[in-house]
Amino acid sequence: MSSGPDFEKHDLIPAIAQDADTGDVLMMAWMNREAYEETLRTGRVCYYSRSRKKLWRKGEESGNVQELQSIYFDCDADTILVKVNQIGGAACHEGYKSCFFQRVDPSTRVVQVEGERLFDPAVVYKKS
Amino acid sequence: MSSGPDFEKHDLIPAIAQDADTGDVLMMAWMNREAYEETLRTGRVCYYSRSRKKLWRKGEESGNVQELQSIYFDCDADTILVKVNQIGGAACHEGYKSCFFQRVDPSTRVVQVEGERLFDPAVVYKKS
Repeated sequence: MSSGPDFEKHDLIPAIAQDADTGDVLMMAWMNREAYEETLRTGRVCYYSRSRKKLWRKGEESGNVQELQSIYFDCDADTILVKVNQIGGAACHEGYKSCFFQRVDPSTRVVQVEGERLFDPAVVYKKS
Repeated sequence: MSSGPDFEKHDLIPAIAQDADTGDVLMMAWMNREAYEETLRTGRVCYYSRSRKKLWRKGEESGNVQELQSIYFDCDADTILVKVNQIGGAACHEGYKSCFFQRVDPSTRVVQVEGERLFDPAVVYKKS
């Protein structure tokens, strides 16, 4: 058994966020060791943004923070699962509860949107 | 809206498998375009093994295949979510239902195993 996720093998490890109450898979992002440590220490989920190349305190802009309920790592110690209380109800920057709101029909390849927009991204992120 | 996961940006995309009935997150692995296409075509989940560098038809050795119930991709089109019927009940090669059977206590860092072993890996994979 490992003592925790292995950041020696990979600097960045995928972290899956799941709604602790409903079981909905909300999003997948990345953690480095610093983000993982901050998540444990603060009880709020912190990722590492690959595009911005810095810690990403989820919800720092929108207020939709993720309160950590429990944290797991997998058999290979190279993936993290966080169960969270998603403040604001929506994890996705596009305003949906889950980032996985696009469903593919395997036969037709038609993509359908599942779920409603809970907020308007233009308002929350004050983009002009 | 995208027409599907974007394999132009990244050859390999993380794919999260979730139990369609219970909502348990079972595992995370990787798909390339070929694995994704095979999954859609066959209705059985196929990943790409980074270590073996080839398609990984989940369950081909253990019999514990994953029947595809539905398939989603995320807002950035760079992560896949499959909801599956996990044959045999256990997704993890260590015999647990979920690969995320190790839970970390944020205060003490103590790791506890959650869940029972459903099979003995030594028997299923016939390792000597």
